[in-house]
Formats: sequence, C-alpha cells, structure tokens
Amino acid sequence: MALVRGSARSVAQQVVAARWLLPVWDETHANEPLWLEDHALVLEGDRIAAVLPREEAWKRYPSAERVCLSEHALLPGLINAHTHAAMSLFRGLGDDQALDTWLRSVIWPLERELVDEHFVRDGSMLAVAELLRSGCTTLNDMYWYPEVTAQVCREAGMRAVLGMVVVDFPSRYGSGPEEYFQKASRLTQIIAEGTLKDSPENPHREIPLMESSYAPHATYSVSEEILREVGKRAMDEGRRVHIHMHETAAEVKASQTLDRGVLVCHRSEFAGAPLDNLERLGLLAANWTLVHMVHVTDAHIELVRRRGASVVHCPASNLKLGSGVFPLTKMLDAGINVALGTDSAASNNRLDMWAEMRLAALLAKGSTGRSDCLTAYQVLRMATIQGARALGLDHLLGSLEPGKAADFIAVRVADGLSTMPVHDVCSALVYGAGPDQVTDVWIGARRVVHDGVLQTISQAKLVERIRHWHQRIRTLGSQRGEDGSYAATTRHASRN
Amino acid sequence: MALVRGSARSVAQQVVAARWLLPVWDETHANEPLWLEDHALVLEGDRIAAVLPREEAWKRYPSAERVCLSEHALLPGLINAHTHAAMSLFRGLGDDQALDTWLRSVIWPLERELVDEHFVRDGSMLAVAELLRSGCTTLNDMYWYPEVTAQVCREAGMRAVLGMVVVDFPSRYGSGPEEYFQKASRLTQIIAEGTLKDSPENPHREIPLMESSYAPHATYSVSEEILREVGKRAMDEGRRVHIHMHETAAEVKASQTLDRGVLVCHRSEFAGAPLDNLERLGLLAANWTLVHMVHVTDAHIELVRRRGASVVHCPASNLKLGSGVFPLTKMLDAGINVALGTDSAASNNRLDMWAEMRLAALLAKGSTGRSDCLTAYQVLRMATIQGARALGLDHLLGSLEPGKAADFIAVRVADGLSTMPVHDVCSALVYGAGPDQVTDVWIGARRVVHDGVLQTISQAKLVERIRHWHQRIRTLGSQRGEDGSYAATTRHASRN
Repeated sequence: MALVRGSARSVAQQVVAARWLLPVWDETHANEPLWLEDHALVLEGDRIAAVLPREEAWKRYPSAERVCLSEHALLPGLINAHTHAAMSLFRGLGDDQALDTWLRSVIWPLERELVDEHFVRDGSMLAVAELLRSGCTTLNDMYWYPEVTAQVCREAGMRAVLGMVVVDFPSRYGSGPEEYFQKASRLTQIIAEGTLKDSPENPHREIPLMESSYAPHATYSVSEEILREVGKRAMDEGRRVHIHMHETAAEVKASQTLDRGVLVCHRSEFAGAPLDNLERLGLLAANWTLVHMVHVTDAHIELVRRRGASVVHCPASNLKLGSGVFPLTKMLDAGINVALGTDSAASNNRLDMWAEMRLAALLAKGSTGRSDCLTAYQVLRMATIQGARALGLDHLLGSLEPGKAADFIAVRVADGLSTMPVHDVCSALVYGAGPDQVTDVWIGARRVVHDGVLQTISQAKLVERIRHWHQRIRTLGSQRGEDGSYAATTRHASRN
Repeated sequence: MALVRGSARSVAQQVVAARWLLPVWDETHANEPLWLEDHALVLEGDRIAAVLPREEAWKRYPSAERVCLSEHALLPGLINAHTHAAMSLFRGLGDDQALDTWLRSVIWPLERELVDEHFVRDGSMLAVAELLRSGCTTLNDMYWYPEVTAQVCREAGMRAVLGMVVVDFPSRYGSGPEEYFQKASRLTQIIAEGTLKDSPENPHREIPLMESSYAPHATYSVSEEILREVGKRAMDEGRRVHIHMHETAAEVKASQTLDRGVLVCHRSEFAGAPLDNLERLGLLAANWTLVHMVHVTDAHIELVRRRGASVVHCPASNLKLGSGVFPLTKMLDAGINVALGTDSAASNNRLDMWAEMRLAALLAKGSTGRSDCLTAYQVLRMATIQGARALGLDHLLGSLEPGKAADFIAVRVADGLSTMPVHDVCSALVYGAGPDQVTDVWIGARRVVHDGVLQTISQAKLVERIRHWHQRIRTLGSQRGEDGSYAATTRHASRN
C-alpha cells in the first residue's frame, strides 16, 4: 500500500503494530480480507500515513516511536452517532417508569432546576471519560450549552460534532429560536478559533477536532418555520442537521391525526407522518441525520434512501423506553447509511458502543428470526465508517486508510476471558469484547488512553465532581412532591 | 437481625463490609428497603452468620478478619441457570450462519471430532474462569463428561449443578441411554465423595459445593421411554431435571404435526406440543427446569404454573439464533419462577450474567412497549434467588441471609464510569455495571476472586491451553470440505 502523504517537513512519526488490524475497507475493497495479521499503522502528524506489514514498517521507519501490541486488534475508533453527553448526571434516575411519567416528573423538572454551564461541564466530562475509556473516539452530541461541551472535548482530546440546539420554547440557555441561532453562530466561531490550537502537544494537527451541526430537537418541538430556517442555514453553510424522528408510534400517530393533546404531535398543520412533512417542505436531504426512525413504513424507507439521508439506530434506548424495534435489516437492504448511537445515559444507561453493536446484531436476528441476517462485520461498519458518513466526515474518519485521521483503538482480544479462542477476530470484537478490553485509544495520533488509563482526564477529580452532583440531586429528591415529582422542588425554588 | 448459627466450636470468622448491601430478601420482607447502606456480612465457616450495620459488626466480632469496601455493593453471587461450559472452546465459530447450517456443518462435526475429557477440562476451565471473574458463583451445566467439569469446579471452588446428559443416540461419551445412566450414577458418587474434601482451605465446609441433576437433552433427542425413566429416577432420588423445551417455533410445529423430516420433531407418537406431551405422560413436576420456552401459548404458561416447574430465560442466545422473544412478563405475571442463563459461549458469545440481566430487562420493555413493565430489582432476583429456586437450592443460595452459603460478590459502582452517579444502586448494577466492575467473589466464604484477580485458576496457564485448542480447531478448519463443512474433516479422520 503506497503512502499518500510524503510530507517533506519533519513530523513526529509513530508506528503502532498489532496481531490483527481491521481497516474497515470502503466498498471498493470488497474482495479484501476483513482483517490483516501482523500489520502496523504508520502515523505522521495527526494522520495515518500508511498501513504496512509489521516488519516492513519497522524497516521503513527505523527512527519512529514504536508500539507493539501482541494480543490486540487495532480498529477505527468507534463513533457514537447520537448522544446527549451531559445527561450522564441523570444516569439511572427514574428507571423503570412509564416514559411520560419519567419525562414529566423526573427529567424535565430536573433539567429546569439544574442545567447550566457547570452541569454541562461536569456531565459532559463524565460522558467523555466513559466514551474514551471504552474506545469511542467521536461523539455526535445534542444538548444545551454545546460551547461548554466543546471546551470539555478540546481538553480531553475527544473528537466531536456538537449540535446547536434549536427548539421553539425558551430555556435557561436561551429565550427562543432567535437566541439559539445567535448562540449557534457563536459556537461555530469558537470551534473555528480553537481548531488550530486544539492540541499543543501535537503541532502537526491539520484535521479539525470539532465541528458543529444544527440540532433542531424534533418536529414536535420545532415549528415548520424554524425547521425551514434550519434547513436553509445548514444548506448555505454546508452543515449537517441532527434531529430526532419517528421515535415512538405515538409521535407518528398524533402527527397523522393532528392530535394536539398529545405532547409529541408535530407542530405543523399537515396531517401526516413527520417525515412526509419534511419531504413536503422540501427539507429532507443528504445532510440530514435522522435519529431513531423506529416507526416507519416501507415508503418512508424508500424516501430516506432517495434523499440520501443517514439514520442513527439507538437499540438500547429504543428498547428501554419501550419505543419498539428499529427495522435494521430493511434499512440496510435498502442501502441506507445506518449509524449507531447510545442516546444519553439517562435512557441507556451505558455509553458503551460495544453493548450497542452486540444488541443491534442480536435484535436484528431475533426480530427477523434469521441468525444469518446480519454479520458482525456489518455491525462494526455501522459503528465506524457508517457513523463517519452520518456525520459527513467519512473522508476523514471511520476507517484506517492513509490520509485519514489517526483515530484508532487497541482491543486486547487474544487472551480475553470473553473473547478467546479467537476463531474470527471480527466476531470476537462485536459479540465478545467489552470496554474493559480497550487498552489504548488514539485520537489524531494523540494517545488519550494508555494501558487502560485516561491520559487527558483526571478520573479522581471527576469522581469528586460527580459526587457533588449526586448529593445535589439527592437533596432535590428528598424534597420531591407527594406525587413523586421533582416539579414541586422546582416550583419551590422558583419562588425564591 | 439475630444470628441463626451460634456455633460453640471455634470457626474462622470474617466480616465483609461495604457501602451498599443488597440482601435480595424473600417475599416475607416485601416492605424492607431493597438495599442497606454501610452494612456488613459476618461469615462463619462457609455460611453467612449475620447481616449487621457495619459498626455493630466491628464491635461484636473484634477478632474477625476484616474487609471494608467503600465504593462497592455486596450482592448474592449470580446464578447462571443454563450453560454448556465446555463449549466455550467453540466461541464465535460459525457466527452469523443460519441455525441449521451452523449446527450441521460446524458444531456437530467438531463435537464428534474433538469432544473428550481434555476438551471438556479446558473448555470448562475457560468457562469457569469467565464466570468467576464476572461474579457468577453457581452454574447449572449440561454437557458430556460432567465428571470432568465437576473436577474443574472443585479445583476452582465454583459451585455447580452438573447435568447428567441423557440422549437416545451414542456419542464418544457413551453407547446409549444405558451407559449414560451408569455414568450418571458414577457422577453422583464422585460428587458425594468429594463433598467433604471440597476445600482443604476451609475445614468448616458444610454446604455441598456440587450437586447433580438429570439432563435429558430435549424431547427431540430423548424418547418417551427414556424420559419416563429420567422422571422416575429424578423423583425417587430427589434430583432435578434440566431440559431444553420449546426453543424454536419449528420444534413445536413439527411435534404438533409429527413431521419426522424435521430434526427437532419430538420422539413421541403424540401429535402435540412437547410440553403437552410431558403433561400427558404425567412427568411435568416442580423438580423440572425448562430451558428456553420461547414458543408457548397462554395454556402452556398456565400448565407450567400449575405444576410448579421453573423456566430458564436465555435472552442473548434466543436472539442470536433467531429463535424469538421469550414472553418474560407473562411468565412473571403468572407467578412462574423464571431464572436467567447465558446458554453456551457458542451461541452467546459471552458468559456474562450482567449482559443477560440488562438484555432481559431491555427486551421485555421493548417487546411490550412498556418501559415500566419490569424493574431492575425483578431482574436481579431472576439472576439470584430465582436461579437458586430453579436449581432446588434456594434454601442455601440466592440471597444474603443468615444460615445461607456465603456466596457473594463485591461490585465497584460508586466511582464506575458507567455507573456513577449512583442514584439507585439496584438500577446502577442491572443497567450500568459489567464484569469489569466485579472486584471480589466469595463462594462458601472462600475468596476466589480478589481485587479482580482469579485466585484458584492460573489465567496464564489457561491462555496457553486455549491456544492449543485454537490451533487444533484452526487446523481442522483449513481441511474443511468444499461446502465449508467440518464434516469432511470428520469423515477423513474417521477413516484413519
């Protein structure tokens, strides 16, 4: 394999070799083996310069810094295509309640009470720590104060696409759509300014660590007018749109019947499924990433395919909230780009792409009755290259190829109690491995996890901060109303 | 809480305290809190002598050996109610194939080729290592050479119920039912002889480390005549019967139509569901443990309830093999004792009761559309006390109560990246925790995992043995027939 970057200037070079290497080839390599044995990645600056047999890499780059991992597989960093990072502070709160009760009496009142810059900073830090430690190198986020999450990602060296939230209603973050759009512009500016100084340790960084997208929450919380504005801005600015769609049967049904008494009825006068309304408005396009899409018809699948939009499957969250089973094999058969996401820790409770990969595969097999309907490799693609595509970043991320960002992970599989014997390394990774087997993580060639230890986040300090929030939420809980709702607390607090 | 065992003789005493303790109370404690804070277990011999507030335990037992775990939850050891331990050597072999192809061209030919005492010893050791390390303290096994698995469990200090396999056909293990019954008697004798010397380190052992059960494979592999013999022997000897039932729709349908062309048609002349046939034969009773039970009618559920049989739910295996979705909430609503099992690593691929608990809960919520249909605590009960009941051992195992076996585990949750903040420790355990958070495991008061390290199994030696099997299976794989089947190898080998 030839080098694609023969930079003349002196750059830091590293060679990382392992027992197995899964490049996650693009479609043009359909006949290549799924993995290489005893190969190495050559890194220059923040990019992959070459993929070579190990011995050849040692020979060609004698002065490079060397890492050799004999029991490990190297693969592209996992891409979590949908989360609300800061909500990790709500992990497990109100589990096992009916969805409506959970939202109205736990999550929303607590958000009104607690969500500010400090909350988002500490909650995002917890999420980023869990993600990095488990081998996720890029997250696609949607939450209030994205500029704070951006700061956390920059400090941690985490790659991120940060959604600029837009909803019709006011929040502690903004008075309404106008202010949300202003803050969106500001975030874009912050990210652009930060790009060149993302990592003082790596003066050769060329690939931006962060991007921003428009994140209108859903068609039941954003009016047609604002959706149009989002669609226009995104198109003009070359940004992506990240939106929840067709998560529950109730959302689709209420929109079809324009039942305004239902919270999740879309905010249009059009009686029809939200997706059909987007199409009617001419908004649905290849830069849209539609999250959930559990309740869809074959016509919807065809529509998504035709417009080239991406879809994010969040299997654990869909099951845990009782939303239903996403038609994964139908989507893939139609040729739609499907990525994987954890959703937030409030509805998951783990931010663990290994659990998500395994569940996506098991659920597809169980729901279709066909144990051969999906392969481990197809699932791995969803968590890597297809995630990159859903973020509009597949030219830079999602596979181990010369010229792409050096975002990759080492997973110890050969001697893992849940993975050995490794008859098929791809199967061992998807069905057997877990976060604890991820030993090392590189993002833009920076080793942010080393031998299982976070290098950019102090876990001890993080634990202290989380204890603070735990206490605060516990105190609020002790003041809950007779109906068990946190709303009583909020009302009390707002009188002060 | 009073001591129930005030033994006069001098016994080894230990006090193990932790931040949280989940006793998993029996039904008579319905109004007790689900967990205690800052409590301790007092151990005497191989039993729990008391559950006390930590400070009181320190005061009352000043000379006892002390362990204090400040970030941890103590809970009963997890009980894996259905597995085929030795099949761990086939982990991931033939994943993503159609069930029939997988069995006929991969699993069965390899079993014919490889399964002997050495295979069962090393495969069982791998399974026991994975189970212990992840906090499982008891396994309910069903496989050839159970006396070899018994030896492995004794060495490892693992509690086990070992199924004495009965099938109609000959195998490398025996020529037919008569020999299987002879070997069953021999296993029972071995276990009885071994009981008093199970653990030289613990001269105070009183609770048997192992038991045996009858394990007729399934009604499609065991004739009515032999099933009757099993039922009679089990009743006479006070043993349990462990059997696969109603795993696939094909099994039920073929039995209903007596379609002998289908491999999984039951071996009776009765045209009806296998469960109805067991009832007709008067076999179904409270000492039967029915594994899978995916395809059942409401009448079957009522029948199982009436006979008091237990059912084992294996959610990952049922999904992965495309069998379908077990009606968990219906079974629990009927008052049936439902336990949890991983099935073998060949169809899972993890022997991880954490993944199984989480999946059981998510799947129940997703398939019913009700996020409140099952609580984390109900799922934890399935993996502990209900597992004990399915093994006929709930008087000794499954909860942390005075007089019961000191089988318990410590899980580090307070500072876990996927569990903090711990708003509800039961929810954090079931939805957030994983094997890597299990730090310590005690079985019969013997600490078999200490700070994450196996104490009774050399992991390094185990890895060496597994490498040997990996190589051997790889070699067989390279000799596979043109149809990809290992059968060609077997045919070749049998000519030699």
